[in-house]
Amino acid sequence: MDLDRLVAEARDGTPRAVARLISLVEDGSPRLRELAAALAPHTGHARVVGLTGSPGVGKSTTTSALVTALRADDRRVGVLAVDPSSPFSGGALLGDRVRMGEHATDPGVFIRSMATRGHLGGLAAATPQALRVLDAAGCDVILVETVGVGQSEVEVVALADTTVVLLAPGMGDGVQAAKAGILEVGDVFVVNKADRDGADATVRELQHMVSLNRREVSGPAWRPPVVRTVASAGEGVDDLVGALDDHRAWMADHDRLAEGPRRRARAEIEAIALADLRARIRELAGDAALGELAERVVAGELDPYAAADEVVSSVRG
Amino acid sequence: MDLDRLVAEARDGTPRAVARLISLVEDGSPRLRELAAALAPHTGHARVVGLTGSPGVGKSTTTSALVTALRADDRRVGVLAVDPSSPFSGGALLGDRVRMGEHATDPGVFIRSMATRGHLGGLAAATPQALRVLDAAGCDVILVETVGVGQSEVEVVALADTTVVLLAPGMGDGVQAAKAGILEVGDVFVVNKADRDGADATVRELQHMVSLNRREVSGPAWRPPVVRTVASAGEGVDDLVGALDDHRAWMADHDRLAEGPRRRARAEIEAIALADLRARIRELAGDAALGELAERVVAGELDPYAAADEVVSSVRG
Repeated sequence: MDLDRLVAEARDGTPRAVARLISLVEDGSPRLRELAAALAPHTGHARVVGLTGSPGVGKSTTTSALVTALRADDRRVGVLAVDPSSPFSGGALLGDRVRMGEHATDPGVFIRSMATRGHLGGLAAATPQALRVLDAAGCDVILVETVGVGQSEVEVVALADTTVVLLAPGMGDGVQAAKAGILEVGDVFVVNKADRDGADATVRELQHMVSLNRREVSGPAWRPPVVRTVASAGEGVDDLVGALDDHRAWMADHDRLAEGPRRRARAEIEAIALADLRARIRELAGDAALGELAERVVAGELDPYAAADEVVSSVRG
Repeated sequence: MDLDRLVAEARDGTPRAVARLISLVEDGSPRLRELAAALAPHTGHARVVGLTGSPGVGKSTTTSALVTALRADDRRVGVLAVDPSSPFSGGALLGDRVRMGEHATDPGVFIRSMATRGHLGGLAAATPQALRVLDAAGCDVILVETVGVGQSEVEVVALADTTVVLLAPGMGDGVQAAKAGILEVGDVFVVNKADRDGADATVRELQHMVSLNRREVSGPAWRPPVVRTVASAGEGVDDLVGALDDHRAWMADHDRLAEGPRRRARAEIEAIALADLRARIRELAGDAALGELAERVVAGELDPYAAADEVVSSVRG
């Protein structure tokens, strides 16, 4: 396989080449190192928008509507849907793909459903590299859609230039229950399904919480807007695109555009380093050393911290 | 805080002491090392049963019904519900707790909802230590309930002596979609909501798949049974308890009872070692070294693998 040719084809926008390269990333190809080097000169253009929120708020529908709006503006768009990676999640994901189907034949759109399964480190490990592939393929905007479960919503923030948090009216305790986490992660809030009962209350509550939430930053702080959408009908989607552009313009005005790429690079370096260290720990297992330590812990001769100390010492060898 | 006294109180079955010790684990207390040493001599008795499956199959209801059945048998029971840790998940979790409410005043039952949020390494990092606490507190059986999302269903297998995989009829493509993963992880399969349409088909399909799935092991292999339950009505729960006991008896007959404790010890050692190594990586960030490497990656001077090599070298330094 000629990696340089694949990268050249991906840069020309050949969907098969893009898909092939992302598969290499997902499969943890031994040539990832080589691939990273081949991609590096061609990246740094794309802007990454993360979308997160509970199941049922309409993330996929909103993502699809955003793709339509961005395409109308002739921007090349990538979509990474980060799956919960479970063998149990088949149904919902098929649904997602169907909803994205209208963009399937558009040569200006790359859609990829990422499986994090098997990637130690989950989202963090494979997504930054998949973003690089889409970036090199000339995407102007890459939408990263994650389920708001586990640490994924925190990780998506580390990868995105702009993070969109979606809510919907009538999702139980909704805003109040979610209070602690969402204010910190959102640059833009969306109340989707805004034609439903309770939408006004949800919007008001969010606006109130945002107004109270003075982030502890030095200098001026971005004030996250709350956008109302009915994504299934395309309503409010232009407002959402406007809010994304406003955030980008504000970051540019405050000389902060480099923050996103820097965070992505950090996350990527950390993920690769951790995977490397984890592999070294597993190698010890091959030596039966880890098995022997486990035996001694089971026998009560050693506590697990002392055992871990031995592992760390050997890794640091 | 007197750790030895807390451990002694936990061994006497004082719920507050058990709760306090698990909180120390969850919060990543600097005294975890000391705690592990204090618990070590008192552990090794409990049997760990993992329950996993998609949202909606009735994991909490089944767990609660199992608690009732095990209590009727006068066994002391611990329940660890491993939450998806999301700020968005408030609603569903409250529901779970309510369903567990009937056991809240039973002194022979400890129920704990674990938040994995903030625990690097997720489930793997904190759960083994929480299991030790419940083990030392004299639990005969500990039920670990996880959402079948992400790597949690894989991780729960590493921690459990017996893994129960739950399905329900009419969950979309159900069995077929889930095929790849579930056969590998289940020691016992449950088709819950077995009074619903399609239950027979789901049971037959599962039985067929189990019969085809010849695990690549040397020696005789356990053949996972498929149990029908209507957990909300308590139906089939005795059969499930019987299946769990059958599995345990089979493992005992084949001299394999030590496998679970060994896997738990390994998972725990690995998790502690990785957390340690991760902390060392983060320390580098404090040195601004990671930030500087990220800058060079953004500038295209360095690819992320080369940057990660530098991080690993410093950690191993």
